[in-house]
Amino acid sequence: MSDKENKLDLWVTETHQDIVSLGFKVEDTLFSGASPYQQVDVVKTAGHGAMLLNDGIVMVSERDEFVYHEMIAHVPLFTHPNPKRVLIIGGGDGGTAREVLRHETVERAVMVEIDEMVVNACKKHIPSISHALEDPRLKLIVDDGVKYVDRCQETFDAVLIDSTDPIGPAQPLFDKTFYENVSRLLGEKGIMISQSESPFYDRQIQESMFSNQRPFFEKIHMYTFSTLTYPGGLWSFGFASRGLCPIKDFDPQRASASGIAMQYYNPEIHRAAFALPAFVSRGLSGLIDPVPL
Amino acid sequence: MSDKENKLDLWVTETHQDIVSLGFKVEDTLFSGASPYQQVDVVKTAGHGAMLLNDGIVMVSERDEFVYHEMIAHVPLFTHPNPKRVLIIGGGDGGTAREVLRHETVERAVMVEIDEMVVNACKKHIPSISHALEDPRLKLIVDDGVKYVDRCQETFDAVLIDSTDPIGPAQPLFDKTFYENVSRLLGEKGIMISQSESPFYDRQIQESMFSNQRPFFEKIHMYTFSTLTYPGGLWSFGFASRGLCPIKDFDPQRASASGIAMQYYNPEIHRAAFALPAFVSRGLSGLIDPVPL
Repeated sequence: MSDKENKLDLWVTETHQDIVSLGFKVEDTLFSGASPYQQVDVVKTAGHGAMLLNDGIVMVSERDEFVYHEMIAHVPLFTHPNPKRVLIIGGGDGGTAREVLRHETVERAVMVEIDEMVVNACKKHIPSISHALEDPRLKLIVDDGVKYVDRCQETFDAVLIDSTDPIGPAQPLFDKTFYENVSRLLGEKGIMISQSESPFYDRQIQESMFSNQRPFFEKIHMYTFSTLTYPGGLWSFGFASRGLCPIKDFDPQRASASGIAMQYYNPEIHRAAFALPAFVSRGLSGLIDPVPL
Repeated sequence: MSDKENKLDLWVTETHQDIVSLGFKVEDTLFSGASPYQQVDVVKTAGHGAMLLNDGIVMVSERDEFVYHEMIAHVPLFTHPNPKRVLIIGGGDGGTAREVLRHETVERAVMVEIDEMVVNACKKHIPSISHALEDPRLKLIVDDGVKYVDRCQETFDAVLIDSTDPIGPAQPLFDKTFYENVSRLLGEKGIMISQSESPFYDRQIQESMFSNQRPFFEKIHMYTFSTLTYPGGLWSFGFASRGLCPIKDFDPQRASASGIAMQYYNPEIHRAAFALPAFVSRGLSGLIDPVPL
């Protein structure tokens, strides 16, 4: 028998709401550890590259991470006319920082990640995603993002909340107090992007998070993208600002002329992402604002 | 212990390319049979309603079937200025016929399904999807779609190929001869829609099918939608015609004024669906035509 035939058939499988499961074939475990916050694992999958899991939930895979990271970074940074300072909350794998730092306008990015074990595991085992963590324009702070924004006196053009689900360490990142503090850090044209879960499965979380954001932002929109690694495939980000419009204030020429080579994002996808399925816009009516498409 | 705790934890799990798996919790088996073509099962899931599987592959679930069926029907039928005659190949569950027949302009729909067992199982166990199979405007023919289009002399405004994957009974529905026959049946403004698999996982199938369509159609486009029940979430349809443009020839007013209550489709989604991720448009460059967005 060949090596292949001798190999144990290993799968890592995540279940969601006890009704759906998503599994990936695993070839090897690259890292396993328990941090003060969560179980952290990096595995080598068959077909999806290296994959990070926190508490058994898939965070990122090399095969499709470009979608999430391009969409969290480029939608706000090509809407803001001149983004120079960016704050990332979470994002320990480094993928969001990588995409932010591809913007030449960005002079300073601050990333606040609570779990150093995630950062170190990704630095060692997923360099294709984490390599930008070495960029001199990035200040990496290992701290609680909630406490950080409470103390912070700096002003940012974009705050990107690259969080896990609202259970465990990320729970306070979905609270009113946190959003109020973020809104205080934003400049006049500042944008807050927040990971806003599955439009199919997580309506209740979305209602709660957009309600909590509402008092502090003039406009709240939502946009979607497709992942391979989150249950339901379709996923979403909230786009909150003092009134900047992700369509009218978006200059597609600036995106095309940037020279940044994209795998998912392009000016057409930027606009299309704000077109919401009928059940989504009806379900979130009053909580998010319509976008002129 | 309660009934719930006593219940066996049953899941139906489909693997794709031996690298990813998608599972659904099952409460009950409603139907199981072996037709001359395939194994046919209908199960009651926890959280996704009734679900049809052919050869263990999920075809449709009550929870998200509206996405697929609205997108296969309404994108062509709101692009064509006055669709009266529609041919459906496959679609044994009846969902595509249901959406087609919501168009008042449609006078006659012909549906050619090879597997009567699928039709009967869905009629009995998934009436929410199959109920339109009783509509007097629908002619249901149990026959091989490939042979049917070879013999057919009728002209249609839209031909919707609601097929399974290109393995098993649906394989010839991806061949040149079949596409040539379909093109012969289309009127001047006729549109062929074809189920075109996962943009993430099935590039090779897409290349082959669009290459096979190319000689018989002036324009070939692709559009995407999000499902819960197919691996990868993001899924696609091909849009082939003699030059009708799904954006320029689309009248959003006609869609809004139709009075058809939609769960996924709306005019914004119609246009947004043709915006393709960068890796998709690059990968299929030359095989599909760009759309002015």
